Amino acid sequence: MGAFDDVLAANAAYATTFVDDGRPGQAAAGLAVITCMDSRIDPLAMLGLKKGDAKIIRNAGGRVTEDVLRTMVLATHLLGVKRVLVVEHTECKMASATDEQVHETIQESSGIDTRSLEFHTMDDQLATLARDVQKVRSSPYLPTGIEVGGFLYDVRTGSLREVL
Amino acid sequence: MGAFDDVLAANAAYATTFVDDGRPGQAAAGLAVITCMDSRIDPLAMLGLKKGDAKIIRNAGGRVTEDVLRTMVLATHLLGVKRVLVVEHTECKMASATDEQVHETIQESSGIDTRSLEFHTMDDQLATLARDVQKVRSSPYLPTGIEVGGFLYDVRTGSLREVL
Repeated sequence: MGAFDDVLAANAAYATTFVDDGRPGQAAAGLAVITCMDSRIDPLAMLGLKKGDAKIIRNAGGRVTEDVLRTMVLATHLLGVKRVLVVEHTECKMASATDEQVHETIQESSGIDTRSLEFHTMDDQLATLARDVQKVRSSPYLPTGIEVGGFLYDVRTGSLREVL
Repeated sequence: MGAFDDVLAANAAYATTFVDDGRPGQAAAGLAVITCMDSRIDPLAMLGLKKGDAKIIRNAGGRVTEDVLRTMVLATHLLGVKRVLVVEHTECKMASATDEQVHETIQESSGIDTRSLEFHTMDDQLATLARDVQKVRSSPYLPTGIEVGGFLYDVRTGSLREVL
């Protein structure tokens, strides 16, 4: 038994009914969504989109890191992205603890010392979102005319609110 | 008219029928999927999963960057992830050009000089995948016993193949 047999079997079922829509790598709706890895977020459904419409970028916290900026340069110049949503969410683990607290929790549960890492936790989620949105807007590497908005998603109601 | 009125209207419709399943931030199926931002990939559907089951991490190329490793530390120690899929895909823009070619393309179309950025393009996609999988396996910051697999997804057939 392989460690991934269950997901491979599920994928085989998916492939059986898969229909190739012929779409290229371009984002058909011209959208990119930067958001958290959180399992409660379904970015396409949340925005009424379907496969092929948008580039989805996700990490812990939906933070605009260097890796995300690199990705946005490619998405905008090469893949048809014209509008970017940066989406934070309620009940985010990254907004409920400090880096120090996370280091302590991991040390206590596993004995592993992670203090050489920066987790990019947020002490003020909306202030962090404002900085992250500005980071995209201020990037000198993106084309002019890209629209960038900051949003908060409520994982309990499914509602998205534009906050900046 | 705001630049995001259409997606906000679509979200309002989504929220109308949204049912809170009460799930916490833990990944119910213990899975994390690291993959490309490519709009043709629907990670949950591809693996027969549903909202709440998995942490999804995405960037250009599905590359295992420092940002992804930081995210994996949090996902495994705090959020219930036990198995990690690193998923490359066919027709990936990141595997069809060199960094130099991308810099040239952007320079020609926009006049913007991006040469100070590293795009992490791949000249050999499967060799890169092997290195990226090993990067997760070798991380000293992850708990022991995490399973990590490398996969290739075919965007034209919907099939996922385990390659290492």
